[in-house]
Amino acid sequence: MHSTMMETPLSLNHLLERAGRLFAGNEIVSRLPDKSLKRHSYGEFYRRTRSLGAALKRLGLAKGERVATLCWNHHAHLECYFGIPAAGGVMHTLNLRLAAEEIGWIAGHAKDRILVVDDVLLPLYRQFAHLHAFEKVLVYPFSGQPVPAEFEDYEKLLAAEDPDRFEYAPHGEDDPIAMCYTSGTTGRPKGVAYSHRSTILHTLVASLADFWGLRGTDVVLPVTPMFHANCWGMPYGAVMMGVKMVFPGPHLHPEDLLDLMKQEPPTLALGVPTIWMSLIQAYEAAQAPGSPNHGRWVLPRGMRSLVGGAAVPESLIRAFDKHGIWILQGWGMTETSPLATVSYPRAELAGAGDDERYRRAAMAGVPAPLVELRLRGDSGVDQPWDGHSVGEIQVRGPFITGSYHEVPVSGEKFTADGWLRTGDVATMDALGFVRITDRTKDLIKSGGEWISSVDLENAIMAHPAIAEAAVIAIPDEKWSERPLACVVAKPGQEAPARESLDKHLLAHGFAKWQLPERYEWIAAVPRTSTGKFWKMKLREQFPK
Amino acid sequence: MHSTMMETPLSLNHLLERAGRLFAGNEIVSRLPDKSLKRHSYGEFYRRTRSLGAALKRLGLAKGERVATLCWNHHAHLECYFGIPAAGGVMHTLNLRLAAEEIGWIAGHAKDRILVVDDVLLPLYRQFAHLHAFEKVLVYPFSGQPVPAEFEDYEKLLAAEDPDRFEYAPHGEDDPIAMCYTSGTTGRPKGVAYSHRSTILHTLVASLADFWGLRGTDVVLPVTPMFHANCWGMPYGAVMMGVKMVFPGPHLHPEDLLDLMKQEPPTLALGVPTIWMSLIQAYEAAQAPGSPNHGRWVLPRGMRSLVGGAAVPESLIRAFDKHGIWILQGWGMTETSPLATVSYPRAELAGAGDDERYRRAAMAGVPAPLVELRLRGDSGVDQPWDGHSVGEIQVRGPFITGSYHEVPVSGEKFTADGWLRTGDVATMDALGFVRITDRTKDLIKSGGEWISSVDLENAIMAHPAIAEAAVIAIPDEKWSERPLACVVAKPGQEAPARESLDKHLLAHGFAKWQLPERYEWIAAVPRTSTGKFWKMKLREQFPK
Repeated sequence: MHSTMMETPLSLNHLLERAGRLFAGNEIVSRLPDKSLKRHSYGEFYRRTRSLGAALKRLGLAKGERVATLCWNHHAHLECYFGIPAAGGVMHTLNLRLAAEEIGWIAGHAKDRILVVDDVLLPLYRQFAHLHAFEKVLVYPFSGQPVPAEFEDYEKLLAAEDPDRFEYAPHGEDDPIAMCYTSGTTGRPKGVAYSHRSTILHTLVASLADFWGLRGTDVVLPVTPMFHANCWGMPYGAVMMGVKMVFPGPHLHPEDLLDLMKQEPPTLALGVPTIWMSLIQAYEAAQAPGSPNHGRWVLPRGMRSLVGGAAVPESLIRAFDKHGIWILQGWGMTETSPLATVSYPRAELAGAGDDERYRRAAMAGVPAPLVELRLRGDSGVDQPWDGHSVGEIQVRGPFITGSYHEVPVSGEKFTADGWLRTGDVATMDALGFVRITDRTKDLIKSGGEWISSVDLENAIMAHPAIAEAAVIAIPDEKWSERPLACVVAKPGQEAPARESLDKHLLAHGFAKWQLPERYEWIAAVPRTSTGKFWKMKLREQFPK
Repeated sequence: MHSTMMETPLSLNHLLERAGRLFAGNEIVSRLPDKSLKRHSYGEFYRRTRSLGAALKRLGLAKGERVATLCWNHHAHLECYFGIPAAGGVMHTLNLRLAAEEIGWIAGHAKDRILVVDDVLLPLYRQFAHLHAFEKVLVYPFSGQPVPAEFEDYEKLLAAEDPDRFEYAPHGEDDPIAMCYTSGTTGRPKGVAYSHRSTILHTLVASLADFWGLRGTDVVLPVTPMFHANCWGMPYGAVMMGVKMVFPGPHLHPEDLLDLMKQEPPTLALGVPTIWMSLIQAYEAAQAPGSPNHGRWVLPRGMRSLVGGAAVPESLIRAFDKHGIWILQGWGMTETSPLATVSYPRAELAGAGDDERYRRAAMAGVPAPLVELRLRGDSGVDQPWDGHSVGEIQVRGPFITGSYHEVPVSGEKFTADGWLRTGDVATMDALGFVRITDRTKDLIKSGGEWISSVDLENAIMAHPAIAEAAVIAIPDEKWSERPLACVVAKPGQEAPARESLDKHLLAHGFAKWQLPERYEWIAAVPRTSTGKFWKMKLREQFPK
């Protein structure tokens, strides 16, 4: 027998249509380069996005062709998220924090045909324009200045179209709608292409009550760049539920974010741990009576904060919880759409105390529905979920990539039975909580035993005088490898003595042989374009 | 270009596997016929369900064959929800409230091969056993009594299997997993067959924060029968998030439910309005100092209550809100999996007062994601969403049925362009709120103008002396049709005079010509097997 259900394909266009009909009165706020706020209704967003679709079709965009964006977080970038797929195109977000040469290489590899670029980012565009010839460059006049004559004016193109007459490009649910390139610290970046289907499924899963818990009454502040793993998928979820969005534009300094949070208090904010570390430091510094910013900011109590992209230290979770802000940690990668695990409150831990609650919150969390996850040991067998057996995380599911754009499928990235090898090493416990212990390439093997650089980093960062710490392996004749800790003291704090740090680590349960071989005091931990610790740079700086 | 996403099919088996791994310690509670509570862990549920799958395969169940259930709400029924599809079968829930002849006809039409039946329901089974020959009858010893020798013992079958060695039947995502027959008040019941895909999509949508808001820390009490539209899909959602479930078994009297809610306080309960009406009446009667039940019950403050299956009167919403229980109304039907609309708090109404909040909560609500909804007028054109234009609700989407099992697709049920005609008549407003005004066949046409029987019923039920009201059309020489109100007085209340009711309706905004032609005092409104007003019976009783 057969199911009697309709064969309606999953479609991003459905989310846009429902937003236009149901949520026309809700608001999208964008911060402009001059820090003023621009407001659009969902009704305007809907009509502008359809106009963008019409304009792209008029420019001759064919099904499946790539339209790149080089933009900050703002309403026009959101229009691209929906308008490019509406016209049948594939939105390809370029990462403006990469080196210009790399951006050019990526645009060439993706064969991007059209570019949408913020006027304030034209200087960056000009640095890589010689590496890839876009057929058309649409400039969004973000700063309000006239668009140079050699480019297309995004606003004028939209104004020339009638949104009521726009017709969506026909599509199947497996057709691509968006592309991101991984920000590999080694080798060339590789492209991941999301489909209507994978995007709708990821959006539904991520929006669930225990994860984003996305409600129509929420106010979302996405600090996560829209060029980073689909802004974690939040633009799709927000439009699905008609949620008010507050886009920070190019202003991501802690002071700017705190100002914005006072002007438009969010109920939900998302970003990498570094953002929240500097934000809480700026806020707490301003609490000092003599501070020039004394009394300037109010943290929005009750806000949820989605943090991912790198491990979240427990100390950060505790620091925010003091202000009534709960940090919800997720783990994933460009290849996983990105949300794969979330650390959310579990019924089984209802009676556990605060310490247990914080400890869990500092883990990567529990696999989301539709995500299958396994721990593979060195010998290729599944490791037990016992809280201490270590293996590589491998994942499978309908919003996990099974290949890379125009790259032959390799055993380095995918197993023979079709799972993605994430390169992250972890333990899992009986409740299914994943605890990332390292990247496969960041593990330290000392005297035949593994030392987790992540565990050491988190413990060192819990020291009251330390702002940041990154641990790398250095070669050792006797032990093969030994940990080296690169540490940053808190502003105005004196670097603690080695004895103080060692004592702190021993108190945190580390064995003597696991203590760093030495500590190097640095001014800041170098970071990748997406805000992660860039250990490759530290390895270059401290080869031994 | 192509998407790079994995082609992993959506699968119910994934939900079972994740529940077994992640939530093994959480609990499923079932109330037995003797009113004692039986507790299973999710770990036991997982193993028992796999054993059921293995037993069904051993009995020779082939892919796509139907296994019927004739059961109350309890853990073994939940095992059927997952174990039958795990073995490749299609779970067909038989509605034990139907006449025995009808059950037999339905089992025959569905060609059910195997039956799982509660021992306490064997007397009902014996009434229709001559109408359809099941190859095997598995008796679940719900009461704890020995299973009669002529049947298979469900528990013994499970005990004979090794759950670790069970292998899921291979399947595609469009393969059927479950069947429900519509409880049409006219014509033969018709079968709807749900697929892995439609079920996963419906589960994700229904679980969203603004709808069920299903969290792992919830405790769910499904009063809605598991043989009624998949228990609204809750069993799937609960297993997806590992939610504690409390099954009421056969004890659905208000006193029994109140006892159970005291023993195992739920955070989320679901049922039809009649259940909640009688529950609040019993609870409030017990508040009287002289009541024999004085002080016996505690309503679980903060509980959400999902109510659907029939229109929810505003008075009921207000009555529960007084006790800190919020009623969330949904609308749908067997054909829509069933959730199609939900009345949830909208950002646009944040500033509106309590009256507006209650008014909205008494509406059917806003279309859920993936559900397309339109209002079709008599002339076949879409009606505007202006809050007063009336049309038939037509729906489309991946968890809406596009046909009926082995029934030719008819224009009466489906439009030529592929939408389901629901037979419900409604208005929609600018925020997308659906307000059901009638069933197409329940509308009253008086002097060329439509009168909504539902509006009249709700207004009459808001009268302090009235418990229930059902309005039907009676023929009228002059006006063609006129409304007749069949009313039930509250226990211990005197039937109010006609003048009092008319005055009450005029105060509620009804015009004089819309007032009922007459009022008939009845002992109770007759109900269908699913608890809806059975107006056909009233029309027979009051033909004019």
